[in-house]
Amino acid sequence: MTTTVLALKRISGNNIVSPIGFKATGIHCGIKHKKNDLALLVSEVPANVAGVFTTNAIQAAPLMVTKEAMQQTGKMQAIIVNSGNANACTGQQGLKDARLMQQKAAEKLGIAPALVGVASTGIIGEMMRMEPIVNGIQKLEPSSELEGSILFSQAILTTDTVTKNTAYSTVIDGKKITIAGTAKGSGMIDPNMATMLGFITTDAKIESVHLQAALKTVTDLTFNSITVDGDTSTNDMVLVMANGMAGNNSLTPAHPDWEQFTEALHAVSQDLAKMIAKDGEGATKLIEVEVSGAITDIEARKIAKTVVGSPLVKTAIFGCDANWGRIIAAVGYSGATLDPNAIKIKIGSTTVVENGEPVPFSEAQLLIYLKQPEVKISVDLHQGIGKGVAWGCDLTYDYVQINATYRS
Amino acid sequence: MTTTVLALKRISGNNIVSPIGFKATGIHCGIKHKKNDLALLVSEVPANVAGVFTTNAIQAAPLMVTKEAMQQTGKMQAIIVNSGNANACTGQQGLKDARLMQQKAAEKLGIAPALVGVASTGIIGEMMRMEPIVNGIQKLEPSSELEGSILFSQAILTTDTVTKNTAYSTVIDGKKITIAGTAKGSGMIDPNMATMLGFITTDAKIESVHLQAALKTVTDLTFNSITVDGDTSTNDMVLVMANGMAGNNSLTPAHPDWEQFTEALHAVSQDLAKMIAKDGEGATKLIEVEVSGAITDIEARKIAKTVVGSPLVKTAIFGCDANWGRIIAAVGYSGATLDPNAIKIKIGSTTVVENGEPVPFSEAQLLIYLKQPEVKISVDLHQGIGKGVAWGCDLTYDYVQINATYRS
Repeated sequence: MTTTVLALKRISGNNIVSPIGFKATGIHCGIKHKKNDLALLVSEVPANVAGVFTTNAIQAAPLMVTKEAMQQTGKMQAIIVNSGNANACTGQQGLKDARLMQQKAAEKLGIAPALVGVASTGIIGEMMRMEPIVNGIQKLEPSSELEGSILFSQAILTTDTVTKNTAYSTVIDGKKITIAGTAKGSGMIDPNMATMLGFITTDAKIESVHLQAALKTVTDLTFNSITVDGDTSTNDMVLVMANGMAGNNSLTPAHPDWEQFTEALHAVSQDLAKMIAKDGEGATKLIEVEVSGAITDIEARKIAKTVVGSPLVKTAIFGCDANWGRIIAAVGYSGATLDPNAIKIKIGSTTVVENGEPVPFSEAQLLIYLKQPEVKISVDLHQGIGKGVAWGCDLTYDYVQINATYRS
Repeated sequence: MTTTVLALKRISGNNIVSPIGFKATGIHCGIKHKKNDLALLVSEVPANVAGVFTTNAIQAAPLMVTKEAMQQTGKMQAIIVNSGNANACTGQQGLKDARLMQQKAAEKLGIAPALVGVASTGIIGEMMRMEPIVNGIQKLEPSSELEGSILFSQAILTTDTVTKNTAYSTVIDGKKITIAGTAKGSGMIDPNMATMLGFITTDAKIESVHLQAALKTVTDLTFNSITVDGDTSTNDMVLVMANGMAGNNSLTPAHPDWEQFTEALHAVSQDLAKMIAKDGEGATKLIEVEVSGAITDIEARKIAKTVVGSPLVKTAIFGCDANWGRIIAAVGYSGATLDPNAIKIKIGSTTVVENGEPVPFSEAQLLIYLKQPEVKISVDLHQGIGKGVAWGCDLTYDYVQINATYRS
């Protein structure tokens, strides 16, 4: 286990083309007014693939096309992404448009359409304008240089204010393997996928079935543990491509270095999830809620997500107000098993509630802490050994401003 | 049934002392800086009583004391209410304080403490300052005049901007009976009671057990069908006192005029619920979401509440933006049974989605509608005959402002 910890290394200058054999790019094709809006990620060889998708009953056309392709081949070699239009609630025409994106990207790369995933993000319910996309695809020149991944991570954004990239290396079978990710988030962010797109690349060799299981486990602890506004999008997806070019023996849960890999996948996913929460629409702060002493881990995560999703907690943190009454009220309505008289709450390292009752604390000192860009709330229920963490952001004037005028 | 409809009459100059035998008042005792903060409602004779309380696992001291009293006697003759401090998460001392409020009000009125209900609303987790309350109770002089009920309805408010009153009369056994209500709401408003207090008075004669059943049914359709911010308070309660002074034969579900009564109770509750939603913190608009064609009524209400609670829908309505994509996304993540290709959505009388796909409409014309103070969204799933309605409000800069600075 010690070697596991030592092997995992965050890569500076991290980006999705860090793993061997990946290229990326992004351009402005004309769906948006000015900003880049079309992106392509490609592997030298067909990669094993895993994906998680929104649980929203309304699913956008690109999700259907991508799932279809994954079922057909179990492989993926490229992902074509547009921002500015979600291609959701667009009916048969939307499906045709998503398939056309897939086909045109495949032609451009000289590969089978079923090896191409499609992702879209942006406004729901407007038909795609396909001409700029079809023309744009012709102009895409993916590169294995840092610049290519920067362009990719820019072109997938909507109201995000920063690009989101991370990468780690670890050692498997004595070989260095790299795993990297990029994501977009910002609004309509709640679990079971958020309006988020996440793309993870790795040169590790791993069968799709094991990759899928690992991704599912890690997603619940990371991407599904963030919330910006409780709205679950129609377009969320996270895709992992593993092209095997690092040359390790194929990973399975029985492989002695299996944990090295899942830890790296977890680290990449958690980094991206936290970046998404921190860059929530209008956010000024990242809020982390850590719950311990719950009956189960699942209950702990449910409480953590309820607290971090409470509009009243979010506005209080925005106002740097140590209003723990709202925290305990949210714990109370989370639906979890609890004893009101056993709850302990800390804001940062300051205990504010013990045995369900207020503990005197220095408001002035806590105010200094609350002015920091990252605020941690810890809740201990003293009921069991269940633990969980969730991340979110504060609720600000800018969230309202951004969303009152989004289509205008 | 026709007579039922004809008999129900909204009373102008409506107020909780409209029914025979009720008095009320409110004063400033000193919990708040300036505004009235102590209120008393009293019946000439002990009244039968029904109550619904927050489902939050953390319940404030006054709720425990009130429930205890109701269990002991099945009657209630008076309710003492303070605003400014919720007396929640205040432990044993909080319980003692709530009991002291009960006892002092009983002494003042010369009745048994177990006939007095206690309600509090305001900041969570601060110990009560009892001196102003104890002194204030001495000064309360309830009146059966309109002025008394105005003072009562003012003194129970927190961040509410308007008082909330309604009253109806109907005819039972040939006798006029009156039912009236007052409420406070504003923030931390989500079902299973919101941070809301509701007090309903009637001179109808009805046993507590039937009153309780009627209140429960009506609450699900009204008070539990509103949301301001999805936060469920520790202090919510609705109490109904029925003092029987109208002289009708005791009401039971077998009484020929039973529906007259439940319709009147429903009308009072719905009026108050809508007033609370409309006066949600920072709100500029009332939003009504009506769902039809669901598998069941319960699913229909769940969808309606999900849509009306979506921060993205709420901000769009604030911005007068006909962003139906957010509406259909919320329908999708509500968890209800649906066919994406069968959904119809109307904003006002304008169809914007049919068979799950966009329908062309005049944005300019819809903008005129969206600028009105009440906006109605209709969703038809075409899956069954389940129907439901929920109410909420838009999410505005002022909501953030109010809640970022609440304790300051």
